[in-house]
Amino acid sequence: MNGLMMDYPLTVTSLMRHVNAQHGASEVYSLTVENPAHRTRYAEIFRRCAQLANALRRLGLKPGDRVATLAWNDYRHMELYYGVSCMGGVLHTVNPRLFPEQLRYIINHAGDRYLFADPLLLPLLEKLHPAFPAVERYVLLCGKGALPESSVPSLISYEELIEGEDDNYDWPELDENTASSMCYTSGTTGNPKGVLYSHRSTVLHTYASGLSDIIGLKSTDIVLPVVPMFHANAWGVVYCAPMVGSKLVLPGPKAGDPEALVAMMNAERVNTALGVPTVWMGLLSYLDASGQRLETVSKLVVGGAACPRSMMEDFETRHGIEVCHAWGMTEMSPLGSVNAPTAGSADLDAGALLAQRLTQGRAPYGVEMRLVDDNGEALPRDGKAVGRLQVRGPWVASRYYRAEESALDNGWFDTGDVASIDSNGFMNITDRTKDLIKSGGEWISSIELEDVAMSHPAVGEAAVIAMPHEKWAERPLLIVRLKDGAAADADELIAWFEGKVAKWWIPDAVRFANELPHTATGKVSKLKLREQFIA
Amino acid sequence: MNGLMMDYPLTVTSLMRHVNAQHGASEVYSLTVENPAHRTRYAEIFRRCAQLANALRRLGLKPGDRVATLAWNDYRHMELYYGVSCMGGVLHTVNPRLFPEQLRYIINHAGDRYLFADPLLLPLLEKLHPAFPAVERYVLLCGKGALPESSVPSLISYEELIEGEDDNYDWPELDENTASSMCYTSGTTGNPKGVLYSHRSTVLHTYASGLSDIIGLKSTDIVLPVVPMFHANAWGVVYCAPMVGSKLVLPGPKAGDPEALVAMMNAERVNTALGVPTVWMGLLSYLDASGQRLETVSKLVVGGAACPRSMMEDFETRHGIEVCHAWGMTEMSPLGSVNAPTAGSADLDAGALLAQRLTQGRAPYGVEMRLVDDNGEALPRDGKAVGRLQVRGPWVASRYYRAEESALDNGWFDTGDVASIDSNGFMNITDRTKDLIKSGGEWISSIELEDVAMSHPAVGEAAVIAMPHEKWAERPLLIVRLKDGAAADADELIAWFEGKVAKWWIPDAVRFANELPHTATGKVSKLKLREQFIA
Repeated sequence: MNGLMMDYPLTVTSLMRHVNAQHGASEVYSLTVENPAHRTRYAEIFRRCAQLANALRRLGLKPGDRVATLAWNDYRHMELYYGVSCMGGVLHTVNPRLFPEQLRYIINHAGDRYLFADPLLLPLLEKLHPAFPAVERYVLLCGKGALPESSVPSLISYEELIEGEDDNYDWPELDENTASSMCYTSGTTGNPKGVLYSHRSTVLHTYASGLSDIIGLKSTDIVLPVVPMFHANAWGVVYCAPMVGSKLVLPGPKAGDPEALVAMMNAERVNTALGVPTVWMGLLSYLDASGQRLETVSKLVVGGAACPRSMMEDFETRHGIEVCHAWGMTEMSPLGSVNAPTAGSADLDAGALLAQRLTQGRAPYGVEMRLVDDNGEALPRDGKAVGRLQVRGPWVASRYYRAEESALDNGWFDTGDVASIDSNGFMNITDRTKDLIKSGGEWISSIELEDVAMSHPAVGEAAVIAMPHEKWAERPLLIVRLKDGAAADADELIAWFEGKVAKWWIPDAVRFANELPHTATGKVSKLKLREQFIA
Repeated sequence: MNGLMMDYPLTVTSLMRHVNAQHGASEVYSLTVENPAHRTRYAEIFRRCAQLANALRRLGLKPGDRVATLAWNDYRHMELYYGVSCMGGVLHTVNPRLFPEQLRYIINHAGDRYLFADPLLLPLLEKLHPAFPAVERYVLLCGKGALPESSVPSLISYEELIEGEDDNYDWPELDENTASSMCYTSGTTGNPKGVLYSHRSTVLHTYASGLSDIIGLKSTDIVLPVVPMFHANAWGVVYCAPMVGSKLVLPGPKAGDPEALVAMMNAERVNTALGVPTVWMGLLSYLDASGQRLETVSKLVVGGAACPRSMMEDFETRHGIEVCHAWGMTEMSPLGSVNAPTAGSADLDAGALLAQRLTQGRAPYGVEMRLVDDNGEALPRDGKAVGRLQVRGPWVASRYYRAEESALDNGWFDTGDVASIDSNGFMNITDRTKDLIKSGGEWISSIELEDVAMSHPAVGEAAVIAMPHEKWAERPLLIVRLKDGAAADADELIAWFEGKVAKWWIPDAVRFANELPHTATGKVSKLKLREQFIA
């Protein structure tokens, strides 16, 4: 017997309708190339979404067609998010920092018909457009007057595209399983893979983000996603902030500029910001060097890579800013877990509490986690057993775009992470499956060693990789970038590990580098490090 | 084109699995007839749910079968919530305070096969059971030893029923549209109507409840639902508290006893409690009379009827407790709106802010509201236009149980309320459609007049009804119960309205009563007042 409740599809369109009716007056600030402080409101963004949808219909966009963006976080990008998805198209956010070969592969694999790009990325487009035969139309995210001469065919400005279009659009009633957006993972091996989100998965992910122990925004919050809108929907912030009416502060091309970020946060009275550890490390250094303060920020959400202990301590003790550790991945829309205390946390001593807070946190309802051993047998949630982390839920990918086979292992998605989970659900990633070091038949966690190295005052960045070893099969090799002006030698760094990890975990050797190689998503590329230091 | 995300049904079963894995250690306190301080944990509750499901399977329960409860808020009732729904049955929570004739109608109309009742309600059961021919089995919510001699056939205790059953159950993979529970509305006219919730509607309602600006519980919260579990699922608290791991404090038969409530709140360190205004008015009187304090409560959620201004002011100024006004109805699962500030609220002066906070608040994403006039034409959201309030969304009823026709009007559910909505979404109910007073062709709000009357220091309870009038068609009649020991006459009360409402709104006459009649859900029965004072 079925319930007798309304059949009401979960769509981004209904979310837009809600925001428009209720939070239309909430502000959206953007920094763009044209305007250092562009201000608009959600209602105005949606009005322009309708114009955009009418323009795209005029260009011939059909349901399911892919529309690519190469863009920073700003209001026009947000208009594309809602306009394209709600008219039945698929917004394909592309990371402009990918290598040209990856961009070529991704845009062709997705079959994007339209490409919207930030003016700063025009040089990239001029170089690459001949490689995108399926793209019919290029649009630059700027006003008519700001459109430069260009070799890109049929290039027009966004404002010219939507100008004069009707600001009403008969948004279709979509099935909730309709595809809404897509994002490619830039795997370190093989070709990138496309994750195709649905309206339903997006809406459910948005609800979970709004829970108090997850991101939990309120109408009165002012939130700055440093995490780019081309990284798994800026962790969903472009949906969950409007849902509750929070003000959005979008840093445009300045997301990597600590000075600009601090100025923006203080001027716009931001209280919550989200980004990867490297961004916050840079910000911390800038605050230390400049003597500036974050005047209104009370909470930083840190995800995308493990949060270094020293960074959490620095922000909390010296700046009074709560650091909230989160974890996710593109295949998870991306939210997997967030760290928030339980009732029992209050009884922990300072050390145990910090250890708990440094875990990746707990899954919201909607993400199920389990650990399995190499034979696929489930492991206990006792905080000790370490195994492959697998997940399932309504916003977890089941298959990659244009892939023949399922991405699942017996109904579960294997994250590629190795982790433990305690009885309260606190999940602690000890490594990526492929980054573990197997020494004498036992596993050593590269992440834990990196965390110890990062706590040394002279270390700016650290990575540990496996070095082949005749007797032990593999041994850890520590690679370090020292802070500017700091000094330390290998012996001193090796001694630093004593008493902090098991003796046999201590790296055998240290190499110094002026810079560590990073992937396009800002993580240290261990693939490149292996090529550089092992070969 | 569809997205490629997991097909993961939204079921109470997946919620139970989540809570079990993650918040299994969170505490549930119950006061029962047998035990003034029963303590358990979610994991233990779910273990017993499995035993209950095995017992019900043994008794022959089939998917879709209805299981009735006549019970207060305690852990056994909660076990029925999850056990019955997750095995594919339908939990039918019945209000024990209904009149015998209504109970007979409801239980027969629902076709309940099993009936679980609190020991305190055995006398009721003994009187009524011959009227329930379809009920095959009666279970008393107590231990084996507490089961009294009784004329109720085949009566057994709950503990005897589940004793020795396997504490594993192969919970079925249900379709998310499967019915999970039902609740009858006790309309003031006609027969009660059954609302049939689904797993999907329940889960989505639970997500929305968890949003920071809605109920927004955290894992560290301790929450006491005074609102009964037979009133639209205790406003969803029995789902949303476990979802995030909050501790639940369940007051059993003492929900109407201010002294017991205050003791329980202080002893269990409750920080959030939910209930109807009459409960909080009683609590306030008790606090005033006894000189006691609520030591840990920081927030009261008030719904089910309009929150009197004086009550909000008293709790906030004299007790430092935030009063949060909410609105809903059985047909809405029941959550419709909650009052939380916007960024703009900070700019309001004290009077305007209080006026905003006394509105029913704003709808979460998932509830769409509109106002229509008598011709069904949509009215503006300008805070001024007043019309019939209609709603739609995934947790709004579309049809009543066993009804032939839809409950909707062009896809919208008519709430029977008359309201305004401002541009920020603050919805203000001015009356029930049927309680409006039409005087000289203009509407007078009975609720506003009642609110003014209630602010008089001598008034304990007030109600305004329409009195037939030769010239004006209808005129307002004020009916008042004075506080114990307080004195006021009709002239003084009528004078109290001067300057507070339009002159022509001021009631023409006042009647005094020692007690006002209430419906089974605790609201003043205007139907009875009309019979008593108009006829």
